[in-house]
Amino acid sequence: MTMDVTFLGTGSAYPSPHRGASALVLRTEGECWLFDCGEGTQTQLMKSQLRAGRITKVFISHLHGDHLFGLPGLLCTVSLNTNPEQQNLSCVEIYGPRGLRHFLRVTLGLTGSQLLFPYAVHELEPTADQSPEEGQLSLQMTAECGPLHPQEQPGRTIFLDASSDSYLLFEDKRFVVKAFRLFHRVPSFGFCIKEHDRPGRLKTELLKELGLKPGPLYGRLKAGKPVTLESGRVVLSSEVLQEAIPGRKVCVFGDCSSVLGDGPLRLCSGADVLVHEATLGDEHREKAVDHGHSTPEMAAAVARACCARRLVLSHFSQRYKPGSLQKDGDEDDVAELKRQAEDALQDSDVEVTLAEDFLTLPIPLRRP
Amino acid sequence: MTMDVTFLGTGSAYPSPHRGASALVLRTEGECWLFDCGEGTQTQLMKSQLRAGRITKVFISHLHGDHLFGLPGLLCTVSLNTNPEQQNLSCVEIYGPRGLRHFLRVTLGLTGSQLLFPYAVHELEPTADQSPEEGQLSLQMTAECGPLHPQEQPGRTIFLDASSDSYLLFEDKRFVVKAFRLFHRVPSFGFCIKEHDRPGRLKTELLKELGLKPGPLYGRLKAGKPVTLESGRVVLSSEVLQEAIPGRKVCVFGDCSSVLGDGPLRLCSGADVLVHEATLGDEHREKAVDHGHSTPEMAAAVARACCARRLVLSHFSQRYKPGSLQKDGDEDDVAELKRQAEDALQDSDVEVTLAEDFLTLPIPLRRP
Ligand SMILES: [Zn+2]
Ligand SMILES: [Zn+2]
Ligand SMILES: [Zn+2]
Ligand SMILES: [Zn+2]
Repeated sequence: MTMDVTFLGTGSAYPSPHRGASALVLRTEGECWLFDCGEGTQTQLMKSQLRAGRITKVFISHLHGDHLFGLPGLLCTVSLNTNPEQQNLSCVEIYGPRGLRHFLRVTLGLTGSQLLFPYAVHELEPTADQSPEEGQLSLQMTAECGPLHPQEQPGRTIFLDASSDSYLLFEDKRFVVKAFRLFHRVPSFGFCIKEHDRPGRLKTELLKELGLKPGPLYGRLKAGKPVTLESGRVVLSSEVLQEAIPGRKVCVFGDCSSVLGDGPLRLCSGADVLVHEATLGDEHREKAVDHGHSTPEMAAAVARACCARRLVLSHFSQRYKPGSLQKDGDEDDVAELKRQAEDALQDSDVEVTLAEDFLTLPIPLRRP
Repeated sequence: MTMDVTFLGTGSAYPSPHRGASALVLRTEGECWLFDCGEGTQTQLMKSQLRAGRITKVFISHLHGDHLFGLPGLLCTVSLNTNPEQQNLSCVEIYGPRGLRHFLRVTLGLTGSQLLFPYAVHELEPTADQSPEEGQLSLQMTAECGPLHPQEQPGRTIFLDASSDSYLLFEDKRFVVKAFRLFHRVPSFGFCIKEHDRPGRLKTELLKELGLKPGPLYGRLKAGKPVTLESGRVVLSSEVLQEAIPGRKVCVFGDCSSVLGDGPLRLCSGADVLVHEATLGDEHREKAVDHGHSTPEMAAAVARACCARRLVLSHFSQRYKPGSLQKDGDEDDVAELKRQAEDALQDSDVEVTLAEDFLTLPIPLRRP
């Protein structure tokens, strides 16, 4: 089962010709999940190797324009590229903070945008400590005046689960996806995508010794259930299975100057890939924090606390040109951001990567 | 006084890497006026020679996403590039169909977008015949729930002036700007920017003969007023002024399959530049009209009826690559759209130009 992450936009605040606004695609076999959708994401998607039509889930970390303004247009264009003959198109599930449903209903509604597929917006209810008070949306502003959009299906409202300090977005056969709280100028969330562990292989030699032949009983054991032999001996699944194959874990942080509560570190512990913003260099730490943002050192501290395998820095101020456009003597060098994170992670095993537009990172299966 | 038009996006339906979504800038000394603002316009602006900070007025032809989805982000980015020390920033005046005010209030409001300058939305009230019934927005959908955005100033509601079959947007020392009605899937408008005629030069030889010396009386005559000489002889302005210098006229049509009423042709008569959509070639006329669009022949008929000097075709289906990317054997050739319009205008004086992204057309002063 292949899995990879492609960065479509790695710039903060606004899109520019050299860095798109925030957007990232997690691809697993047959499906693309989009994380944030700044203006121009659809064009970045066209420039990439990915196919927009495959986007089945969208996650919006927070309602700043540089993470959101591309979403109505992206949905319209995915619809235009959908075959109208196709039946039973699956619902595009959209997750994000309260207010997102109203945003889409108004932008799609006023522009007369009909979609060929249904969509649903599942809203996360932020807590009052996720932003300064002026960053919080009143209930009046997010109240849904009027009926659902013609293609809108009712979405859920998801509240913080206090015991785990996280939001359960969904769980299916392959993944469990949760959100966690971040502090930013407006309420912001991170997302943790955890692939289920898979049972190890059957120890076939041992099974033969026990007199068990391939068949339904093998399936039972593989599914974790015990089997009773004719002799009356009970064979436990754990006896005959090799070590489980641990599921992969990808964590995508929204804009933040800090995590909130113990949910984030608990959820992201041992992440294969942890994507964190580093808007400005460490020398601008005060300004970064003032604006609700992080520096490489701050991102590194999170990755270290999570024992992440790989920290990917993204969401760079537009003052940092991509490495390929960097000229000798340029003042702001994005490579310096990588050095700062690496310095902070010197005595750890965390690998640091700089995101850039169109970079694809494979996430290999873990060896047990 | 220089004047020119720059195309920032010439593609229909959605932006692509080779054609931006609809946007055009009319530049006169010191000011930029933006016509339509599809997604990605701010990035196109950065790639162009123009400066976003100079945009003082915005005109939205209709509320389709490919003409609108870039506006919230553009306003935010213009604000980010505004010097916060600057006092008395002038109000950005925004004109467009009813619903635009609600669209901006919700998109800027939910994203917590504060602007450093005020803005006002002046809404044009469409008539019921500008689109099929399903393209009309209910009053409920455009009702403005909640207070004004913190930087929003109250805008006007502008109704059709039945006698001239047009909407008067504003008039200042240099220009009068009106809108006119078009038929499309949703109510659509065109804009006519008319520079005032300027008085001709003074016939200085003649004035000397009359015994008039340079001074305030010259100003009086130039302003069109009569002057009485000591002899009692009345000198009329018209006697001593050369022919007036006619003002230039630029007409920008929104998406349409036809004009509505006699306003459009009357207003656009003698246009120096008439920008009209030609989404699909004449061979796809039925499909074009079905979707509320025009073909080159249809655009040519409008330009001919207006006796325009120059017809600029734009808003091409994304199937038409720009000339520079055209390869031998490509089926859809944008040059063919030009030929079709030229064929239809064979026996006229209308010059045909194909718009392309970043094309700038100077609009020279007319000789009297
Ligand atoms: Zn951001
Ligand atoms: Zn943000
Ligand atoms: Zn259009
Ligand atoms: Zn349209």
